Amino acid sequence: MSITFPAVPALDEAAREQALARQDRLTKPAGALGRLESLSVWLAGTQGRCPPLPPQRVRVVIFAGDHGVAAAGVSAYPAEVTAQMVANFVAGGAAVNVLAERVGAGVRVVDLAVATQVPGLDLPPEVTKWHVRAGSGRIDVEDALTTSEAEQAIDAGRQLADGEIDAGADLLIPGDMGIGNTTAAAVLIGVLAGGDANQVTGRGTGIDDAGLERKRAVVAGAMARAAEHTSDPVRLVATVGGADIAAMAGFLAQAAVRRTPAVLDGIVAGAAALLAQRLAPGANAWWVAGHRSVEPAHIRALDQLALAPVVDLGLRLGEGTGALLAIPILVAAADTLAGMATFDEAHVTDRAADA
Amino acid sequence: MSITFPAVPALDEAAREQALARQDRLTKPAGALGRLESLSVWLAGTQGRCPPLPPQRVRVVIFAGDHGVAAAGVSAYPAEVTAQMVANFVAGGAAVNVLAERVGAGVRVVDLAVATQVPGLDLPPEVTKWHVRAGSGRIDVEDALTTSEAEQAIDAGRQLADGEIDAGADLLIPGDMGIGNTTAAAVLIGVLAGGDANQVTGRGTGIDDAGLERKRAVVAGAMARAAEHTSDPVRLVATVGGADIAAMAGFLAQAAVRRTPAVLDGIVAGAAALLAQRLAPGANAWWVAGHRSVEPAHIRALDQLALAPVVDLGLRLGEGTGALLAIPILVAAADTLAGMATFDEAHVTDRAADA
Repeated sequence: MSITFPAVPALDEAAREQALARQDRLTKPAGALGRLESLSVWLAGTQGRCPPLPPQRVRVVIFAGDHGVAAAGVSAYPAEVTAQMVANFVAGGAAVNVLAERVGAGVRVVDLAVATQVPGLDLPPEVTKWHVRAGSGRIDVEDALTTSEAEQAIDAGRQLADGEIDAGADLLIPGDMGIGNTTAAAVLIGVLAGGDANQVTGRGTGIDDAGLERKRAVVAGAMARAAEHTSDPVRLVATVGGADIAAMAGFLAQAAVRRTPAVLDGIVAGAAALLAQRLAPGANAWWVAGHRSVEPAHIRALDQLALAPVVDLGLRLGEGTGALLAIPILVAAADTLAGMATFDEAHVTDRAADA
Repeated sequence: MSITFPAVPALDEAAREQALARQDRLTKPAGALGRLESLSVWLAGTQGRCPPLPPQRVRVVIFAGDHGVAAAGVSAYPAEVTAQMVANFVAGGAAVNVLAERVGAGVRVVDLAVATQVPGLDLPPEVTKWHVRAGSGRIDVEDALTTSEAEQAIDAGRQLADGEIDAGADLLIPGDMGIGNTTAAAVLIGVLAGGDANQVTGRGTGIDDAGLERKRAVVAGAMARAAEHTSDPVRLVATVGGADIAAMAGFLAQAAVRRTPAVLDGIVAGAAALLAQRLAPGANAWWVAGHRSVEPAHIRALDQLALAPVVDLGLRLGEGTGALLAIPILVAAADTLAGMATFDEAHVTDRAADA
């Protein structure tokens, strides 16, 4: 298998222009709704209609996978937590489930590289059928995946995007779960967006100072291993990524190819988005950055992708939680453009009349 | 009439402690939900229960009033727009109406000092019965209000808070509408939170450079007139405020006295909150800053009140719009604390087990 993606379509320029023009006729000073205005224009461009609809079917797909680097002591939690949290997602008890329910989003979790099992728990095939391997390799000393496994994972993400879009999803959120995944993400962002190991390494789930030193050393080692693969996204994610991140990249690339907008979450989605932008140049036009994570590498990824976070609430959880917090803002953007009266309709004097 | 407020009650410390303890048992790394966690603790403290409920009855009360300074050319819009926008609020066509509907909040508008009327439009008495005068005075050269008018307006705000709380409101948002109101707000913030006329004056609805120069001169003149009244909030709002801002201050002070939380909007609410904090010390414990406005004086007011904005989306509209955008975040804070599984419930290994 060789992974290639068709060209990413541009947003609908006519719908964008209509949205910009309509914003200027609404009963408010021009520009006074700030980011809501630009988000409404973006939504119009993704939907090819003005005014755009609020997202009707938001879907969170959580890409779960373990990482061999967890054995290097880079996380505050043991690797078994990945499988336990997959069970928690299926049972509906995690933060992402709670936040998704309120905004009417669906949540599913898929196992790309979970390494352990919860005793006595049989996960349904729609979770397990995407499994590529039991844990990605320890990236400071070995490859995360073979090239074939990387392609398999990217293709899984592509199929997942197709499945969701064919079922009617009009806004996608890739979520993450995996002890050790912020280590791989930091490496990928350091390589693709710039920054040395000290700059891109954060505390993840909350490691202490000694753990942070270990994590920095691991990131530095992996970045050195990655240096010769920066121009080949498949080879790069095989060397220092993981099956979960590779699948997320394929998912984001295919969503853009299919003209389906996505809201990015935190550092892991940021790393996957950088890869997806290499797999499918221009895909970033179809994305909004839902939030700014406290992980230091995250804003580097967003800057490289020319994306600005919608909210900044000090989250560092992943799962898609930060992206879900941006959904009501997107809805507000669509609602105001569609629902506000114009100056003419409301018989309100526009500033032009004051000249 | 002399305006005094009873002591502001403290938040419920037991409920806050319970919320803090529960956050640490939920299936996420400690602190990983960032601001959602502190907001959930605040909600618990305001409600005296853990977990807190999402707000059940959010009410926006828009305080409308004209300002004589509009005649000095400090706004991009003519003064007639105030009355026209009151009509727009009643008809449901403004941004605040659209945003409120989505989050299930009610909206009402009250006329404290609207100076004009929309020809042919009869507003209902629940809008007009609070009218104190037709336009507050031009504050760079004359007082906004007499002391008696200021007390009448503060008392109107107090009655409005009582009425809303007696009708079941559990979260209040004071909104603003008034051509020229950011000029008075900038003056009050400069006096009460610090900053000279150049630092506190912004472009409001979007004045040009020449207008900004005029506005700065007006703000400087009014700040000079205010200097001798900084320790008397009633006298201060009479000198350089306005009936709308005075009423909003009374509304915020009484809400805190009545143990009812409020979400602050932009610069006008910020100025009113500084006055309310003088009228009822400790009231700020009952407030959250919904958003950060682009008006430069706003963050000075929030800093003085020890409040940090929830979102920062470049809004400069007022009406309560920025506060409404924070409501889904508050709901998310309540939902996650109430709805997430604990480590024990979900059989997920906590980090303590990894020690």
